[in-house]
Amino acid sequence: MENIKIAILGHGNVGGGTCEILSQNMQLISERIDKKILVSYILVSDTKKTRKWPTLGAKLTDNFEEILNSDVQIVVEVLGGIEPASSYMEDALKTGKHVVTANKAALAANYPILTKAAKDSGVSLLFEASVGGGIPALSAILGNLRGNRFSEVSGILNGTTNYILTKMGSEALAYDDVLKSAQELGFAEADPTADVEGIDAANKLSILMALCFDKYVHPDDIPRKGISHITLDDIKSAKSQGKKIKLLGTARLKDAIHLSQNAENAKLADKASEIEYFVEPVSIDDSHPLFNVDNEYNGILIRGNAVEDVMMYGKGAGPLPTGSAVVGDILKIAENL
Amino acid sequence: MENIKIAILGHGNVGGGTCEILSQNMQLISERIDKKILVSYILVSDTKKTRKWPTLGAKLTDNFEEILNSDVQIVVEVLGGIEPASSYMEDALKTGKHVVTANKAALAANYPILTKAAKDSGVSLLFEASVGGGIPALSAILGNLRGNRFSEVSGILNGTTNYILTKMGSEALAYDDVLKSAQELGFAEADPTADVEGIDAANKLSILMALCFDKYVHPDDIPRKGISHITLDDIKSAKSQGKKIKLLGTARLKDAIHLSQNAENAKLADKASEIEYFVEPVSIDDSHPLFNVDNEYNGILIRGNAVEDVMMYGKGAGPLPTGSAVVGDILKIAENL
Repeated sequence: MENIKIAILGHGNVGGGTCEILSQNMQLISERIDKKILVSYILVSDTKKTRKWPTLGAKLTDNFEEILNSDVQIVVEVLGGIEPASSYMEDALKTGKHVVTANKAALAANYPILTKAAKDSGVSLLFEASVGGGIPALSAILGNLRGNRFSEVSGILNGTTNYILTKMGSEALAYDDVLKSAQELGFAEADPTADVEGIDAANKLSILMALCFDKYVHPDDIPRKGISHITLDDIKSAKSQGKKIKLLGTARLKDAIHLSQNAENAKLADKASEIEYFVEPVSIDDSHPLFNVDNEYNGILIRGNAVEDVMMYGKGAGPLPTGSAVVGDILKIAENL
Repeated sequence: MENIKIAILGHGNVGGGTCEILSQNMQLISERIDKKILVSYILVSDTKKTRKWPTLGAKLTDNFEEILNSDVQIVVEVLGGIEPASSYMEDALKTGKHVVTANKAALAANYPILTKAAKDSGVSLLFEASVGGGIPALSAILGNLRGNRFSEVSGILNGTTNYILTKMGSEALAYDDVLKSAQELGFAEADPTADVEGIDAANKLSILMALCFDKYVHPDDIPRKGISHITLDDIKSAKSQGKKIKLLGTARLKDAIHLSQNAENAKLADKASEIEYFVEPVSIDDSHPLFNVDNEYNGILIRGNAVEDVMMYGKGAGPLPTGSAVVGDILKIAENL
């Protein structure tokens, strides 16, 4: 059985979850793709530290150059943060290595550079885990749904804020109180800014837009409102009207219509080049497909001119759900090697 | 730009929807895959009949042999029914043509024969449209989720029965009354047996099981209860407990657990080879991910040992949603040719 050699950059939650899945499901995976995934290197900052997650016999190194100069075929970047992650990915791609990443911040900030580097080298850059954790939404957009002209992509893209908004509603607690308990439970970071101000959601929306509309917008240029100003009264007022407040990242054609309307109108859709996009709290009622996506779950709604509405729901974070998406991308590349 | 020549067997709702999408979205599709899809033949029973859907310059023929002996690379089977569809697909595969089908009855009845024919000839047999219409669930199971050991797949797999059960609940109408109005609206067939007795759902469950568990069970061997015995009192009684009755097709490992539990338990999962499966009406409460899949919509819940729960929701039928899945499969094959 052929070995596919990979390196994993980072061994925190996502890198660890990826290793755990590769460890536990390796036999099954090998049977499915008829190849064996061999983790040759794991890049860590401290090679001496005791590891919480399996290392799969990999060499632990703190030197990225060693990986770059090795014979690994796939580099899995799960460091988080924009740098040095972006530079590592660009270097790996330019060296002819395929790249899998879960890093929405790096990808959204440097999407044009990274996708160009992949194209120029004729290698793959896959990033399912960067949006919606384990939910296979990007694979669907680039895969079975690609016969569609997309008119909208909208999602609950951040689990922390969805958890906070859900708990404010279900337990009638103020924002600050829920945030505090979320931090204690590990559902929110000590510095929650990136989540609660919609920065994380904007990174993910930037990636979704690039795929659905072939239009790249830097996340800083996406109009953005967070949830820190949402009061318990806002939540109660929405609830009294049968609504919920959700932090949505949305990009849509202004004049979207479906194929199911007449052909004359459908022609118009070709010309509707104007896309509106934003991250903001929105009141939605129970007719909205994302109404019941609660707690730490993520949900992504995709509208296409043929498929109409497709909604996908699942765990948007966590070592194993996110690792599932990373492993899926690794297997896709490995299979085609 | 390279032409990919295809033939479409059937020009009813699904074949017509496929042609409509290829017609309207052709430019976009060509840009995305950098190839042009050329419909060389459409197999119809009456070549003289006026056509409701675009024919895209294809030659209309009533002779399958003509297609089999032609240079088309992909045969799209959307005839419906077990025969002659199964024989046509087998012949096409044996002749080295790739096959895309939306036909759950033919596929579920002859899954081992058809998948073997594809494997022996080294060609693709894709069938996303056979389960859940436009919902890209099969692509996810075979794609980004394939690093998972699946523990359960469960779905609202039939839009007609879901519509009937929803309307019984929302309008407090008896089964016979809703069925009659569904027939008038075109949501139910004149002979609704295959839908209301769970035969259609069993076909789809057979396909889902084969993919998730690598275990083929003929649909006739899937224990099956339909909805024709469900009374308005049953629905009301469920409603009073905050529940809904849904016709579910479910296959699951009896002792399924998640990776997130400890490693010792996770090892047990490897040994849990016993799978239980059934199609039957089930009372579910609002904690169930399929609770809010109402009316004619389908929903498919997939549980994996890494990703945990993923749920996908969308239109389970209709010319364009189903055509979306067919076109997605065509493009996947075309891209790799």
